[in-house]
Amino acid sequence: MSSAAKTPQEAYDLIVENLQEVLNPEIIKNVLEVEKRPLEVYWGTATTGRPHAGYLVPGLKIAQLLEAGCKVKVLLADIHGFLDNLKAPIELVEYRAKYYKYCITELLKAVGVSIDKLEFVLGSSYQLSKEYTMDRFRLESVTTMHDAKKAGAEVVKQVDNATLSSLIYPVMQALDEEYLKVDAQFGGVDQRKIFALAKDCLPKIGYKERAHLMNPMVPGLAGGKMSSSDEDSKIDLLDLPEKVTKKLKKAYAVPKVVADNGILSFVEYVLLPASAIKHGQPKFVVERREGEPLVYHDIKTMQQDYEADTLTPQLLKSAVASALLELLAPIRAAFDASPEWQAIEKQAYPPKPEKKKKEKKDKGSRHPGAVTAKPDGSVEGQGSAEVSVGTDVNEALEKLDLEKNAVA
Amino acid sequence: MSSAAKTPQEAYDLIVENLQEVLNPEIIKNVLEVEKRPLEVYWGTATTGRPHAGYLVPGLKIAQLLEAGCKVKVLLADIHGFLDNLKAPIELVEYRAKYYKYCITELLKAVGVSIDKLEFVLGSSYQLSKEYTMDRFRLESVTTMHDAKKAGAEVVKQVDNATLSSLIYPVMQALDEEYLKVDAQFGGVDQRKIFALAKDCLPKIGYKERAHLMNPMVPGLAGGKMSSSDEDSKIDLLDLPEKVTKKLKKAYAVPKVVADNGILSFVEYVLLPASAIKHGQPKFVVERREGEPLVYHDIKTMQQDYEADTLTPQLLKSAVASALLELLAPIRAAFDASPEWQAIEKQAYPPKPEKKKKEKKDKGSRHPGAVTAKPDGSVEGQGSAEVSVGTDVNEALEKLDLEKNAVA
Repeated sequence: MSSAAKTPQEAYDLIVENLQEVLNPEIIKNVLEVEKRPLEVYWGTATTGRPHAGYLVPGLKIAQLLEAGCKVKVLLADIHGFLDNLKAPIELVEYRAKYYKYCITELLKAVGVSIDKLEFVLGSSYQLSKEYTMDRFRLESVTTMHDAKKAGAEVVKQVDNATLSSLIYPVMQALDEEYLKVDAQFGGVDQRKIFALAKDCLPKIGYKERAHLMNPMVPGLAGGKMSSSDEDSKIDLLDLPEKVTKKLKKAYAVPKVVADNGILSFVEYVLLPASAIKHGQPKFVVERREGEPLVYHDIKTMQQDYEADTLTPQLLKSAVASALLELLAPIRAAFDASPEWQAIEKQAYPPKPEKKKKEKKDKGSRHPGAVTAKPDGSVEGQGSAEVSVGTDVNEALEKLDLEKNAVA
Repeated sequence: MSSAAKTPQEAYDLIVENLQEVLNPEIIKNVLEVEKRPLEVYWGTATTGRPHAGYLVPGLKIAQLLEAGCKVKVLLADIHGFLDNLKAPIELVEYRAKYYKYCITELLKAVGVSIDKLEFVLGSSYQLSKEYTMDRFRLESVTTMHDAKKAGAEVVKQVDNATLSSLIYPVMQALDEEYLKVDAQFGGVDQRKIFALAKDCLPKIGYKERAHLMNPMVPGLAGGKMSSSDEDSKIDLLDLPEKVTKKLKKAYAVPKVVADNGILSFVEYVLLPASAIKHGQPKFVVERREGEPLVYHDIKTMQQDYEADTLTPQLLKSAVASALLELLAPIRAAFDASPEWQAIEKQAYPPKPEKKKKEKKDKGSRHPGAVTAKPDGSVEGQGSAEVSVGTDVNEALEKLDLEKNAVA
């Protein structure tokens, strides 16, 4: 850990490192340079399927934000998780929220960053309040159907059977900025139009506009061949080493082609930044049977070597497997040492009695059931466990209410 | 008052009298004949402009429902009223809700019906609750944009700048049926698609579908020439006799033409049913300077006489003026006798400092700002008083909360 106090400029550079775009950077600079207080940023994720290795991409940005001295609020969107599968009992969603909290916490600890300024907030802890609901009404009455549709265009397929929720989620995402009292929201660049709507509509009801941090669209670790419904190809955060190595071996990596190379992208957006946080500088080592190891400190050189085939897919995969296993080891160890987490895992993702493909809905990539490009390789919805238990909404709500601070 | 206990058939006949359409009449019959309990019906109105004489049209149907032994819940949609004019202080909306309660109560008393089974419910008393909000989420996640748009097609102009609210109101109108625990909803036939959506979507989240009672579209009292923005031509429930007579004289009535004749319609939907409730049978008397008075017991005969010009526009207007004045007299008397109501009136509709035309929004005819055909000649939105006072939403909500039971 290299958590020496940073100058505003150092902090800013780390905050925007690897981002594709920043809206209203002056808001961030003002907080750092004039107000001289920690920047507050939120990142939201619907609590649906098991967090997989792709979560390391936004995870690393969150780690960089924490390293830069920011206060990070992770919104566990449990209501969205609940809406993703109305047939599932509400308990499932609450267990999942707890499971997500464990995963994200341990993931950040594994990167070696301090989590003192990390906070988890359950969506249900405020998104059902009278104040929030009234503000939703107000926003809905000043936002046109046209604008809401346009905002969701990147993350919601423009199909006739898109639900009303898909129009409302962007508006909520704006309101969350106000209710989480943040200076900025972080997400994938596919959220750009949603962020633009937020900038535009919050001032209409008297709230200030926020800055927006956008990760580029990072291809999945298993490359172009990995479909979001192909769960088996995804590397779970808790997968055992053999499984990780096996999945990574099967991953898609065209020799000499850098574009859309999920494995190289994983080095760029996860492994190099992680080593920078852990060791003070980015470093990626590729051991070779013959010759000296290849040692990289930046992605450019790696890309050149990959194009020249000095760095072959086999060498790259093997080195990434080692680095990934090193990153996952403490997460798995924390899981093995925690009977509570183990119990939650069983309750959050009970074994399926039979395999059944679930039809995906379109609700935006940070929202349940989205099947579109991932904002940052991590937050797309996955098919939820098909647990069909009738849910009584009042009972369910009582539970949401009772447990709302259990995770946050 | 002729409130002798009615047989289920008599009750049913009165419930559906003058309606253009009833969806799921079997639900009503089952309550009357099998469950043998009072039918529960809701009618909603946004608390915006001053209720005018057109309110007598749905008012008379409500009177018939009460007379038939139904329990009637009047939803005073104060949140919709608030959203209609975000610049207005929240107090204004609450005063208006109280003003509406006074008007509707006295209007029904003037008709001579018992209001024992009449109940007022403020929208804000439950539409901001966690349960309702969660159910809204659920409905929004099972309702497509396409279906919601289609539902509002009659009452919301299909324009690009229609707001998200206009899509959400139909869904709320469905949910209100469940939360008001009614058997049926009453409205104008322009609500037909919204009612069809309600029938369709409530079962999707585990609630039962309701019956729907639909008034025909009744032309305004002042006829085709009366525009909804022409406030001066509207007869206010509290207008003094001279003003009523003057406005009625100016009303548009083509000799011998029955179609779209607002004055004849007013007799059909207000004056004849009102006399039936008061005197046990429908009766409408037209005094003449020369000759015996014309006495009618049904609209058909009147329409024939009007077409034959036996009943001239002048005779008709004069007779309607007398009957309307008789109906309004006790309402005005109640107002004059109530310093509380007078105070509320001043607060609900403070005098405008200057006249300024307000642009109308499209939100459905039972909702604020609608400018389309009126469902029953009464509930379209009117331009709200232009009181520009900044509203702090939290303060506003506290007040909504504090006062939520003051009216209901």
